[in-house]
Amino acid sequence: MKTDTREKILSAGASIVLHKGFNHTGIQEILKASGVPKGSFYFYFNSKEDFGLELIDFYQKLISSGVEKYGRNKPDDPVSKLRQMFEWSFKVLEQNNYKGGCPIGNLSLEMADINENFRIKLSESISMIKNRIRELIEQAKQQNLLDGSLDAQMLSDFIFSSWEGTLLLMKVSKSTAPQESFFTVLFQTILQPFSRAVKNEAS
Amino acid sequence: MKTDTREKILSAGASIVLHKGFNHTGIQEILKASGVPKGSFYFYFNSKEDFGLELIDFYQKLISSGVEKYGRNKPDDPVSKLRQMFEWSFKVLEQNNYKGGCPIGNLSLEMADINENFRIKLSESISMIKNRIRELIEQAKQQNLLDGSLDAQMLSDFIFSSWEGTLLLMKVSKSTAPQESFFTVLFQTILQPFSRAVKNEAS
Repeated sequence: MKTDTREKILSAGASIVLHKGFNHTGIQEILKASGVPKGSFYFYFNSKEDFGLELIDFYQKLISSGVEKYGRNKPDDPVSKLRQMFEWSFKVLEQNNYKGGCPIGNLSLEMADINENFRIKLSESISMIKNRIRELIEQAKQQNLLDGSLDAQMLSDFIFSSWEGTLLLMKVSKSTAPQESFFTVLFQTILQPFSRAVKNEAS
Repeated sequence: MKTDTREKILSAGASIVLHKGFNHTGIQEILKASGVPKGSFYFYFNSKEDFGLELIDFYQKLISSGVEKYGRNKPDDPVSKLRQMFEWSFKVLEQNNYKGGCPIGNLSLEMADINENFRIKLSESISMIKNRIRELIEQAKQQNLLDGSLDAQMLSDFIFSSWEGTLLLMKVSKSTAPQESFFTVLFQTILQPFSRAVKNEAS
């Protein structure tokens, strides 16, 4: 029962914070949206900060399970898996009329400078995502789907950054164009060096 | 005199909003930091929103003049000019102990969904930056510094996104590593297709 109510508060809070930011969201607002009686917040969380830190885990799980569900019954080679991570996030953003974006990226910009506990927790969350990207690139290299000389560590930084920036650009332009630029440059230039080399050679 | 005081308020506000976000910053706080008497804010701005919209122009000018100053007496071919835009921004971030980041990116994530006037103004500001990137790539293509087949429009989206994401990642990790990944992937893979093609051919 206690767990259910906690989840309800986190779930309602996740949606509001995604759209309004953490500092701009009030506890009463979250309780109202979750249908939990006023004043019971501190029965479930020690503080608003404590709630926010748990929210980061909550978002992380939402992302993992969303990507996993989206990729079911789709090609499961590592390059396709990588593509599906991005496709899923862009699809969610489109479904939300380009509102919200990446909760981890949003909280990073909002909180990294003003709360060290948030910053550390967000860094850990980002490392998990970057590790997943690195792992898929390593697997793709092993399976000769990508050039073996690619630096997976460096690329995981770069690709995570490009992805976050693309979500930002889609959110502010309310347009799908940045997504097309992302897929084209990433999969036709950065992650297709062999075919590109051949193309340049032939032209 | 009126202009001076306006500038003082904008300048003090720019620094506070960069670090705390727009919604989290109070008008009294800005006035205090700028040494302007309490209560005189509405003599200079119609509303907090009006102030925020002017702040976007103020940031845009800061960026342009910062990049321009940084690039003086440095190589002025278009590829170097492009690199200097990024170098300048990373240098500023490092000097600020990885706090702050890109004011335009920060405000985009914070405000794009909740205030349409901000969103439009931020989009215009981002378009100006992307146009500058596109222009430099076009010039580099014309001077045979870059592969003529590169799609400058698409690359301006992609590079802007990667740049913003890199600033985000530096801000949250308080580290310079994402910057190195950015320069390496951007200038050795994306914007150096000829040398890469030759390298692949030779190996």
